[in-house]
Amino acid sequence: MIDLILKNYQDKINMRLDMFLAQTDKNYKDVVEASRYSLLAGGKRIRPILLLEFYKLCGGNDECAYNFACAIEMIHTYSLIHDDLPCMDNDDMRRGKPSNHIKFGESMALLAGDSLLTESFGVAARTVGIDQGLVVKALGILSANAGINGMIGGQVIDTLYDAPITEELLNEICLLKTGALIKIACSCGAVLAGANDEDIKKAELYAEKIGLAFQIVDDILDNTANEQKLGKPVGSDNRNEKTTMVGLLGLEECRKRARELTDEAICILDSFSADSTTLKELTKYLLVRDY
Amino acid sequence: MIDLILKNYQDKINMRLDMFLAQTDKNYKDVVEASRYSLLAGGKRIRPILLLEFYKLCGGNDECAYNFACAIEMIHTYSLIHDDLPCMDNDDMRRGKPSNHIKFGESMALLAGDSLLTESFGVAARTVGIDQGLVVKALGILSANAGINGMIGGQVIDTLYDAPITEELLNEICLLKTGALIKIACSCGAVLAGANDEDIKKAELYAEKIGLAFQIVDDILDNTANEQKLGKPVGSDNRNEKTTMVGLLGLEECRKRARELTDEAICILDSFSADSTTLKELTKYLLVRDY
Repeated sequence: MIDLILKNYQDKINMRLDMFLAQTDKNYKDVVEASRYSLLAGGKRIRPILLLEFYKLCGGNDECAYNFACAIEMIHTYSLIHDDLPCMDNDDMRRGKPSNHIKFGESMALLAGDSLLTESFGVAARTVGIDQGLVVKALGILSANAGINGMIGGQVIDTLYDAPITEELLNEICLLKTGALIKIACSCGAVLAGANDEDIKKAELYAEKIGLAFQIVDDILDNTANEQKLGKPVGSDNRNEKTTMVGLLGLEECRKRARELTDEAICILDSFSADSTTLKELTKYLLVRDY
Repeated sequence: MIDLILKNYQDKINMRLDMFLAQTDKNYKDVVEASRYSLLAGGKRIRPILLLEFYKLCGGNDECAYNFACAIEMIHTYSLIHDDLPCMDNDDMRRGKPSNHIKFGESMALLAGDSLLTESFGVAARTVGIDQGLVVKALGILSANAGINGMIGGQVIDTLYDAPITEELLNEICLLKTGALIKIACSCGAVLAGANDEDIKKAELYAEKIGLAFQIVDDILDNTANEQKLGKPVGSDNRNEKTTMVGLLGLEECRKRARELTDEAICILDSFSADSTTLKELTKYLLVRDY
C-alpha cells in the first residue's frame, strides 16, 4: 500500500522536476544536462513527499505545494553533487551511477550544483494559489535550514572535524546535515497550509525525530546492505574514516534507537487532529527501507 | 558629489552585510569567517546601489529595499568565490587579497559560496514593509537571472568555449555573466517599488546598456590599469587566453562603444518622470571609474 502511494507521488514529482528543469538547445545546455542527470537519477523523493503529506495533514487539499516540494529535492540534489566533489568527499559513485563530476567534469558539476540551488528558490517562488505572505515565510525557512545554520553548517562540521568525534558532535552533524532538509519539508508543508504555531512546532519536532532516525538507518545500511541496492560501495563511510553512529554505538543500539525515534515520531503524528495514516505508514517505511 | 553619495550608500550596505552574516562561535564558524572575508572585502557595491536608486526612482522612499540590495551583493560575492576556484578560473588573487580558496582551502571556499547563495534568498525573503506579492515576484527575478538562463548560463558558455570566440558569443557571455546581476538590480528595484510594466521594461533596457558598458570598461581596465588599483595582475584575462572585447575590437572602438552605451542608458533615465540626477551621475561614473 505505502509502495503504491510513494510511487504515485514519485511519478508526479518526477514529472514536475522534468518540467522545471527542461532540456534546452541554448549555448549553456551542458549545465542543464548535468543538472538533470543528478536530479532525475531516481531518488526516493522522501523530502518532497513529507512536505506534501504535512501540507495535507494541516489542511491543504490541492496541488499548490508541488513547487515547494520540488524545490527541496533540487536543494537535496545540489548538496549531493557538491558533497561528491574531489575537494569534499571525493566520491566517484552515487545512486549506482558515476557521480556528477566524473560524468561531466568538475567545473560543470560545480555549476550544476549552483544551478539547482539557485533555481530551487525560483521554483518555490513561483508557487500559486497559496497566500503570498505564507510563501515568503516558507522561503525564509527554506533558506535558513539549507544555509549556514542548517545543512551547510552540518557539512562544515563534517568537513572540519577528524574522526573519532564525540556522540554529541555526531548528533549535531546529523541534525544539521540530514535533519535540516527534513525539517524544511515538514515545517514548510505546515506553514504553506496555514497551520497554527502549535502544529508547526509539532511538525518540526517530528522532523527532528525522523531526521535522526533516517541518518541512523543510513549508517546501518551503509554497513550491512547489498552494494547493488545501496548504489555505492558498502562501508564506504568507514573507509573514509568517518565516525558513524554504527561505529560509535554498535549495530544493535542503533537499531534500538531508530525504533524508539520512529515510535516517538508516530506519537507526534497521533497528536494532530486530522488523519495521519499515510504519514505513519511512511514513517514506518523509513525504518525498514533497504536502500 | 557622486563619491560622497556612493560612500554613504556603501557604509549603509556594509553595515547591513556585516549584520546579516554575523560572526558566530558555533562549530561551523569557519564558513562564516570565510564568507565574511570575501563579502566584506570592500567591493564598490554598484549592484545594490543600482537597486536602491531604481527603487527610489520608481517611488520607493524608505529603507525597505536594503535586504534585497544586500542579497544581490551576496550573490555577486558567491559567484566570485566559485569562479576563482581551481576547477574554474584558478585565480589566486581577488580585490588585492588572496582569493577565498587560497586563504581558507578549496572545500571551505566551496561551502562559503554555497552559504552566500543560500543565505541571500533568506535575506531577501525577510524584506518587510513591502507588499509580499511584490517580494515573491522580485525573488523570482533574483533566481531567474542568477540561475541557468542568467549569470550561471554566462559562466557556462565562458567555461565551455575556447578562445577565439565570435563577437556575438562574447556579447552573449557579457549580457548573461555580467548583465544578469545588473538586470536583477534595476528590475527588482522597480518591481519592489510597485512600478508599472512600462517602467520595469525601461529599467531592464537600461540594465542591458550599462551591463555591456560595464564589461567593456572592465576589459579596458584589465588592459590599461595600474595593477595595485585593479587588485589583480594587469592583462590577466589575456594571459588566460580569453577573448575580450579589447582583444576583439581594439581599445579605441571599445572606448567609443562604452560611451555610446552610456549615452543610451542616460536617455532611458530621462524618460522616467521622476528625478534621476543621482542615477545619471552613477551611470557616468561607471564609464570613468579607474578600477
